[in-house]
Amino acid sequence: MSTDRAESDPMRILFAGPERLWEPYNDALPKALAAVGISADLAMDHPPSEVDWIVYAPDGPLSDFSPFTRAKGVLSLWAGVERIVSNPTLRLPLARMVDDGLRHGMVEWVLGHVLRHHLGLDAHILHQDGVWRHEPPKLAQDRPVTILGLGELGLACAGALSAVGFPVTGWSRRPKEDPRLIRTLAGLDQLQNSLEDAEIVVLLMPLTAETENLMDRRRLSWPAPGFVLLNPGRGALIDDDALLDALGSGQVGHATLDVFRTEPLPPDHPFWAHPRVTVTPHIAADTRVSTAARVIAENVRRGQAGEPLLYLVDRTAGY
Amino acid sequence: MSTDRAESDPMRILFAGPERLWEPYNDALPKALAAVGISADLAMDHPPSEVDWIVYAPDGPLSDFSPFTRAKGVLSLWAGVERIVSNPTLRLPLARMVDDGLRHGMVEWVLGHVLRHHLGLDAHILHQDGVWRHEPPKLAQDRPVTILGLGELGLACAGALSAVGFPVTGWSRRPKEDPRLIRTLAGLDQLQNSLEDAEIVVLLMPLTAETENLMDRRRLSWPAPGFVLLNPGRGALIDDDALLDALGSGQVGHATLDVFRTEPLPPDHPFWAHPRVTVTPHIAADTRVSTAARVIAENVRRGQAGEPLLYLVDRTAGY
Repeated sequence: MSTDRAESDPMRILFAGPERLWEPYNDALPKALAAVGISADLAMDHPPSEVDWIVYAPDGPLSDFSPFTRAKGVLSLWAGVERIVSNPTLRLPLARMVDDGLRHGMVEWVLGHVLRHHLGLDAHILHQDGVWRHEPPKLAQDRPVTILGLGELGLACAGALSAVGFPVTGWSRRPKEDPRLIRTLAGLDQLQNSLEDAEIVVLLMPLTAETENLMDRRRLSWPAPGFVLLNPGRGALIDDDALLDALGSGQVGHATLDVFRTEPLPPDHPFWAHPRVTVTPHIAADTRVSTAARVIAENVRRGQAGEPLLYLVDRTAGY
Repeated sequence: MSTDRAESDPMRILFAGPERLWEPYNDALPKALAAVGISADLAMDHPPSEVDWIVYAPDGPLSDFSPFTRAKGVLSLWAGVERIVSNPTLRLPLARMVDDGLRHGMVEWVLGHVLRHHLGLDAHILHQDGVWRHEPPKLAQDRPVTILGLGELGLACAGALSAVGFPVTGWSRRPKEDPRLIRTLAGLDQLQNSLEDAEIVVLLMPLTAETENLMDRRRLSWPAPGFVLLNPGRGALIDDDALLDALGSGQVGHATLDVFRTEPLPPDHPFWAHPRVTVTPHIAADTRVSTAARVIAENVRRGQAGEPLLYLVDRTAGY
């Protein structure tokens, strides 16, 4: 029986991510564990009852957590946990991935796409017609940006945009304080106030029952007419039909979307063909193996030492 | 005679900029002067011998400074002074414009165009073909950027790029120290070292006899193959024919140029039609009237009080 396992047996870590990530993690994770003084047996096929820790991704093979009677926790490779948080078989502590590489990638994507629209880069990329139009864009200080969602990623983006000079408003469901922001607002009753006058809106909320379809017809009407919507958060934060209508009316000037209800986005989806929608294929924030492995290793070390896990998910809140 | 002017006469400031800027400066400059306790008579047509200060732009009417026998200095509205610095009639102190708005505009342009190439935005802007290519770009930390020129603007851009995570090398003709840069190098013998491995190169040098054609055939071969060249500095820093050849061979992957030997860039210039050249119409850094007026006013105040002028040009160095 698994409970007969000798105390001297190495720790067993199950890699329940997709097949394509096995090799990179089988290379990086033992090194990261060794760096914090831990030796472990990492495999994709440990018997469930012998597993000490589960490294998990929603696109891996695992959906029933009940046979993992010995496991101490589930360490997600993804920042978004909405596909696991409501799993009734999961009673173990669950930690999200908050990865330096992921955060850096998100900040770069958000900053690049904000500046694309702020500077009007498309005009220069698409229309090199030989006509000299000396029309400098306005400065960042005159372009209000609102970020919905002030988690690790939202705060990092707010800080970067604020450093460039954009007046940033940050909104979250629960109050936050951040000195890098011009102002922070919280709660659904402050949402309209947060969006009014915004020329660029960035969605970085977690997906929960409360935030699904948050950007519906009514709320899309709140920012400045012709505003730019950037969604590197979760696809279902937006009511897609309402967005297409708002693009049609001009209320939304452009939408740049990195995440979708169905991924890959089907080739016949109207977003692909729309002249004022840019689709990027879920590349804004990608977990980088080397940095993510260090986060996993640190959480294993903490768990073994009886210390609180980093980035523990609040199952009630859903993120 | 002008020398009979009473001491109680208000100070006379000649506005020797282009006609189109007269109205905005006639509005903003008296306010900025009043804010530092100075009352002045601003006009475009004071008799030269009665002028105390000259507000100057190269696209204005003034080229002979010899009749301005009473003037205390020339306050340029432009950051670049190569069109005035060698004027033999100019024996007055000359101050460059270093304007907050100009610096912010430059940082925004440089950051936006660096991120455009770093993130590969063109692929998403130009080719929305319904094919889901999940290929996240590498992180800024793996994209070396070199800035040639570490004046006010070069240092500001270096700081902003460094804050986003790019490893920045800064080169200047004379040594500078800046903690925001990974490394600073100086002098022509360090130029090759500064450019090697750079994937993006930003030109922000002043134009002098020494820097004209600095980016010639040989030096364009030093950065990483396929590198991106951004020139928001001065057009003549680049040997245009050498650049076209380097674009043809692929050594330069893309050039984004904001400044040219002839402006407006003639409609039949090959840069307009080249698929891997982006022309922007000298919009990277534009002096903003409200902030520039404050710089002019502060220099008038300093000059009247016998304090050293801000941003005084070193006529020997040429900037």
